[in-house]
Amino acid sequence: MSLDAILKRIDTDLPQALERLKQFMRIASISTDPAYDAQCEAAADWLVADLQSLGIAAEKRATPGQPMVVGHVAGNGPHLLFYGHYDVQPVDPLELWDTDPFDPQIEETAQGRVIRGRGAADDKGQLMTFVEACRACKAETGTLPCSITLFFEGEEESGSPSLIPFLKENAQELRADIALICDTSMVSPGVPSIASQLRGMLKEEFTLQGPRVDLHSGHYGGPALNPLREISRIITSFHDDTGRVAVEGFYEGVDEVPEDQLRQWENCGFDEQAYLGAVGMTRPHGEIGYSALVQQWARPTLEINGLWGGYQGAGTKTVIPAQAHCKLTCRLVGDMDPSAVRARLRAHVEARVPVDARIIWNNDLDGSPAAVMNTDRPEFDLARAALSDEWHREAVLAGMGGSIPIAGYFKEILGLDSMLIGFGHDDDAIHSPNEKYNVESFHKGARSWARILHSLARG
Amino acid sequence: MSLDAILKRIDTDLPQALERLKQFMRIASISTDPAYDAQCEAAADWLVADLQSLGIAAEKRATPGQPMVVGHVAGNGPHLLFYGHYDVQPVDPLELWDTDPFDPQIEETAQGRVIRGRGAADDKGQLMTFVEACRACKAETGTLPCSITLFFEGEEESGSPSLIPFLKENAQELRADIALICDTSMVSPGVPSIASQLRGMLKEEFTLQGPRVDLHSGHYGGPALNPLREISRIITSFHDDTGRVAVEGFYEGVDEVPEDQLRQWENCGFDEQAYLGAVGMTRPHGEIGYSALVQQWARPTLEINGLWGGYQGAGTKTVIPAQAHCKLTCRLVGDMDPSAVRARLRAHVEARVPVDARIIWNNDLDGSPAAVMNTDRPEFDLARAALSDEWHREAVLAGMGGSIPIAGYFKEILGLDSMLIGFGHDDDAIHSPNEKYNVESFHKGARSWARILHSLARG
Repeated sequence: MSLDAILKRIDTDLPQALERLKQFMRIASISTDPAYDAQCEAAADWLVADLQSLGIAAEKRATPGQPMVVGHVAGNGPHLLFYGHYDVQPVDPLELWDTDPFDPQIEETAQGRVIRGRGAADDKGQLMTFVEACRACKAETGTLPCSITLFFEGEEESGSPSLIPFLKENAQELRADIALICDTSMVSPGVPSIASQLRGMLKEEFTLQGPRVDLHSGHYGGPALNPLREISRIITSFHDDTGRVAVEGFYEGVDEVPEDQLRQWENCGFDEQAYLGAVGMTRPHGEIGYSALVQQWARPTLEINGLWGGYQGAGTKTVIPAQAHCKLTCRLVGDMDPSAVRARLRAHVEARVPVDARIIWNNDLDGSPAAVMNTDRPEFDLARAALSDEWHREAVLAGMGGSIPIAGYFKEILGLDSMLIGFGHDDDAIHSPNEKYNVESFHKGARSWARILHSLARG
Repeated sequence: MSLDAILKRIDTDLPQALERLKQFMRIASISTDPAYDAQCEAAADWLVADLQSLGIAAEKRATPGQPMVVGHVAGNGPHLLFYGHYDVQPVDPLELWDTDPFDPQIEETAQGRVIRGRGAADDKGQLMTFVEACRACKAETGTLPCSITLFFEGEEESGSPSLIPFLKENAQELRADIALICDTSMVSPGVPSIASQLRGMLKEEFTLQGPRVDLHSGHYGGPALNPLREISRIITSFHDDTGRVAVEGFYEGVDEVPEDQLRQWENCGFDEQAYLGAVGMTRPHGEIGYSALVQQWARPTLEINGLWGGYQGAGTKTVIPAQAHCKLTCRLVGDMDPSAVRARLRAHVEARVPVDARIIWNNDLDGSPAAVMNTDRPEFDLARAALSDEWHREAVLAGMGGSIPIAGYFKEILGLDSMLIGFGHDDDAIHSPNEKYNVESFHKGARSWARILHSLARG
């Protein structure tokens, strides 16, 4: 049977597959910083070349931002659109990395071998699990079991500004039966997981402008409005003492998780103490009365992602700065409307601005609603069975705390349902120093996709 | 009469004096950043050479930090120790400067001519008023009317770590009858001012450590403790709704300003609306119930000078950072004890640290108590009269909001009283972008010192 041969080939090819991933990860494709534009181009070129080496007709497509990569393989069976992103997060604070983020290393750890470096998990390692599955199919059978369109973007970490126009302009070309996305984690190590719901996201950034100029705290300390103190007060006002967001109307569109869903989640293998303990926490710090799992999957948040003002260098500077700055994101669930949340958040802030200060909003940041997957489609059962075979453990339908707006765009623009399957671990440190991806995730991820393709082809 | 000739010489020499000040200001002597150590050396060398050109025996003295400059001129009359500092504040944020901070320019403004650049007022321009007065005396009379020791340090903006050991080791050499310090402002433009009291200062810096590593706000947003939110909450807790510092016991040692002192201050020419309006404020923002003047001169403060954590770059990064950082200073008045305030402040913070977080204190920062001048000394009346003659306006004894710990060290180590006379304006933007010093301050400052030397010599 050809599936066994394909799986066997994935096993024997693993050292070469890891070398290919290392090559890919050496390209510093940080999309949010224009200084790395050439590296983003290089990462797209690397993907095109790698797909072409498999005999897949792939090309780089220019956009006003980072290029897209699109490849097609005609075949029998259903038509699948596979999505991933080749861009990565910034690496600051660089001093907290134990190795060069762009010189990936294979390391032995207590949890097995890992590949360490920026993009290992998010998303280069994950997207390559699918490419490696395709490579093994082609090598072993000369073809793929399904029609496949591969679609990679390079702006996922910078808000995907070119994505919607590109989808609209190329809707015909990108049409398929279902989209597959590999950019998520497993609920718990070794528990294969398919996303049933994703949180949405609203991005905001504001500056509190106080005095006309930076002031000397001897000359003006006392009478002067201090923007750092005022922005702290505003940030503190965002939550009440129970951890609930105190912005009026914030929870509009949020429903409690149904009892049967809660019971399912309780049995999905999520280990709260391990999840918290991995990052040095002993208890969940979100809304009182909800488990860590529910706080992460089914409750909205308002998180400060960046806060700064005044002097940050060595020693002391007796300054009262003119400005303080804040970046924040809200994770959205249920039917929360990003625009409505933005309006309520801004009203909350504006109502708390003192005399002699004003707020300057960044109006270039977007938002996307939460998404619920169409898990009644037959592909979900087929994929669950394939995953269960590979991992020797029943695959689960899990909530996800992250926001992957692409699923919403695929539905809206291409009319496509999405199935999100990923092999990340909670301790992968994506978006953080020392990002890694377990070699087991990479290896069994590729095997999982081979099984899923085989299974979807047979229907 | 020689005083007139000296004043006349200061007038005619003004263009050359401004050129000398520009030369001095071109040296980027930022003491707080080791990258500028060579520039601090260069500034000290420049001063030594300038004093030697006046026939003053001056030399640079090595310390473990930036060098001191000491010069002596024997003469008749009382022995004066003049103090100033040649180091300057950092220049960030550089993008807010309209000109190169180290390429000083003379500009015409609505308030007359100014010299713009880092150190114009703090303290290069101010200390040069005294040097220029000495130059004119020497040029006109071949001597100085008093015995003078000139003493310049290069660490005033970085906490003066070498100062106390240097004073102790050189106490004999630095002995004098009284110290003169030129590093303060006038109460109001054109109102010559002698400091009657200065606030002390306590410096603190802490890091709030939360999660073990930076976290992804999708994977951990909700359950994760967010250090930016927690540090904001702690900062907010520092003040109550009336603007009063809410740290228990903070006001121990603080007395209300006596009625007669208050009345004096009300008539000292301080223009609250102009003072506030100059920096874009319409009302004082300190403790309710106190005027801006009292808030600045006679009330203690707790000011956040720096606050940072998370992502500060362009775009969005969905991070929950592991750490948040805060720099703060307290201005102290009356008998407040810096060590006691530090202990109370730390207890206040520690009591508010949530489970799963901890505070890391910077233990290298110092503090100094407030200082009250000995205004009964006859030199104060002589200087007031000399200043009143120069400025055609009665000189005032004024409180000062700043902290100049040197006056306390002179008293403690050398047994010396200090008289602080300065010609800065509230809008000089010291410690800020676009620092300037009015040419009138520079010019009439030098003339003021010539008059004061003349008057102190005659007794």
